[in-house]
Amino acid sequence: MGIPTVTTPAALIDVDRMHANIARLHAHLDAFGVAFRPHVKTTKCQQVVDAQIAAGARGITVSTLKEAEQFFASGVRDIVYAVGMIPARLPQALALRRRGCDLKIVADSLHTAQAIAAFGREHGERFEVWIEIDVDGHRSGIRPDDDLLIDVGRTLAAGGMTLGGVLAHAGSSYEYDTHDALVAIAEQERARTVHAAQRLRAAGLPCDVVSIGSTPTALSAANLDGVTEVRAGVYVMFDLVMHNIGVCALSDIALSVLTTVIGHQEEKGWAIVDAGWMAMSRDRGTQRQARDFGYGQVCTEAGDALDGYLMSSANQEHGIVSRSGTPDPDIAKRFPIGTRLRILPNHACATGAQHPEYRALTRDGATQTWPRFYGW
Amino acid sequence: MGIPTVTTPAALIDVDRMHANIARLHAHLDAFGVAFRPHVKTTKCQQVVDAQIAAGARGITVSTLKEAEQFFASGVRDIVYAVGMIPARLPQALALRRRGCDLKIVADSLHTAQAIAAFGREHGERFEVWIEIDVDGHRSGIRPDDDLLIDVGRTLAAGGMTLGGVLAHAGSSYEYDTHDALVAIAEQERARTVHAAQRLRAAGLPCDVVSIGSTPTALSAANLDGVTEVRAGVYVMFDLVMHNIGVCALSDIALSVLTTVIGHQEEKGWAIVDAGWMAMSRDRGTQRQARDFGYGQVCTEAGDALDGYLMSSANQEHGIVSRSGTPDPDIAKRFPIGTRLRILPNHACATGAQHPEYRALTRDGATQTWPRFYGW
Repeated sequence: MGIPTVTTPAALIDVDRMHANIARLHAHLDAFGVAFRPHVKTTKCQQVVDAQIAAGARGITVSTLKEAEQFFASGVRDIVYAVGMIPARLPQALALRRRGCDLKIVADSLHTAQAIAAFGREHGERFEVWIEIDVDGHRSGIRPDDDLLIDVGRTLAAGGMTLGGVLAHAGSSYEYDTHDALVAIAEQERARTVHAAQRLRAAGLPCDVVSIGSTPTALSAANLDGVTEVRAGVYVMFDLVMHNIGVCALSDIALSVLTTVIGHQEEKGWAIVDAGWMAMSRDRGTQRQARDFGYGQVCTEAGDALDGYLMSSANQEHGIVSRSGTPDPDIAKRFPIGTRLRILPNHACATGAQHPEYRALTRDGATQTWPRFYGW
Repeated sequence: MGIPTVTTPAALIDVDRMHANIARLHAHLDAFGVAFRPHVKTTKCQQVVDAQIAAGARGITVSTLKEAEQFFASGVRDIVYAVGMIPARLPQALALRRRGCDLKIVADSLHTAQAIAAFGREHGERFEVWIEIDVDGHRSGIRPDDDLLIDVGRTLAAGGMTLGGVLAHAGSSYEYDTHDALVAIAEQERARTVHAAQRLRAAGLPCDVVSIGSTPTALSAANLDGVTEVRAGVYVMFDLVMHNIGVCALSDIALSVLTTVIGHQEEKGWAIVDAGWMAMSRDRGTQRQARDFGYGQVCTEAGDALDGYLMSSANQEHGIVSRSGTPDPDIAKRFPIGTRLRILPNHACATGAQHPEYRALTRDGATQTWPRFYGW
């Protein structure tokens, strides 16, 4: 079952590249002696998570309770649900803990802390809660100097919950593209999260865990003093956005979409392929970066990037492949009908989500089917 | 099982609005006496297609052979696979026809026509083929005046295949937003496709079917002389892109994403909700239209649009709801944690594809689960 038998469009994983990406992150973090907790939202795939755990991951991060349920069912106990808890989801979190899952939940408001404590007391459950810290104004969390941090910590502790630690995500790291800027944002993420932990401890509250991370900062951190664990997701596949940020080469990207040429508009220099946005996702994450890859970088079927050839446009099940700048008058000869190409995606999390399964391609040319799940 | 019991995020269908959208299209087309063949790629949902067929649809259009297989299994025989055929997919098309599916396939090149004829002869199958016509330079197809049209027709006929007709899609209709412009592009789609049919017939070739359509042109056509059927997909749900084009009101949009407020950044005027791009899709189709709705228009849980409130940004499982223009300092009071909102999507086809199922909401407040499928 080699690549010639894979029907298109298909989400291919280059297994060697995936293992190299996993090993690279562990090599970087091992030097600092911190634990690593991958974010499984990127792939939602058992075989990928198995490889991450085999390489030394300690526990996982999830973005939905469905991910927690699926991976707990397959044997992962140590799980952080890294999206702010709401009261309506507490029964589902309780059920997971009652079944033996070491599920940690996250709060960043007094309202939520109170709701967790009240629900926990009512059901005799001592939830472990991590407080989310806002290190860059990117999205959610409590700023490290805000008095609210201590109020939330006390509310949880006084309410009989376990205040497990603090958690931050420097989402703004995606906006940089130089090594120095990434080192600086990684240091900001570290320093502000450690500061929040120190404030909690100074207030007499427990704070064992200091959890930070994003793929750009995890790979760029030059100092992890005070940090106990790092989280990252997309590092396992990489993508064109990560390439533009500067944390991977095109040849590190482990995920691609295999597609077939189905027609041409020769005068326009277009080859039409059978991967549209349904296969690539609508993610145009490189649009506002220095190098816009359209809907993806075109590669040969073997995986070698074809410089200048992009998926320039996409409809639901049609993609348009063309050369940047001047149209290629020989497009129909270069890519005859039936030609198979690989397209590197802008965003591995979004592209993977469009596919019920990955086709994992090993060095010997064999492919395996690795299912993934979706929904909530 | 009313809406209060639906967990978030969820893809809601307002069933009344859906039926009204279906009825409106049929009322428009019935006046011209042409058949209607819905494109099921929009929902990939049995219950929606059942409603379309009950309202008088004659056959369906599909964008993948998986859609053909799924809907043929549920009893639909008359199916057009409207994406250009490639040789590698002919065995799958043959298998469908051998099981009794009246599957029509599409070609727009000599290469493909020859491959279909050769494969058909080899397997003793008389495929019915429609020739795709390019009416606006939007994507694929043969221009109506191109000699290639006759060559492809003769290749199919001489090869023993059934030349069933011509098919066009005025994809460029999405670029207009006035009634007059839509009437004009609809007339262009009609006239050019009918011209192609006339040229085939003048060459002594059969061409029974003249199939055209897109949601904007189907709803705007003022003349359908020579057309035998119209196709459209997104009309059944509508979305913000269609609103901006001018073919529906906000209150016609039948699809929304139900979400829950999980936190705030009060100083920024942000409410954080549990629908991110995984629930909305990454589709930013209104970005280049006159009115940019971000990731979607915010509505109350009951479905009433809240003027000026948009999902302004989205991460995988987090959306940021804010007011356009000046931030709302009272956002946390307006939308406390736990508040449920509906978000109208940019693009119903893309948003639906992110969800394993729809929650169909009927007038009495009851909901049903309507599964949808994905993948290839």
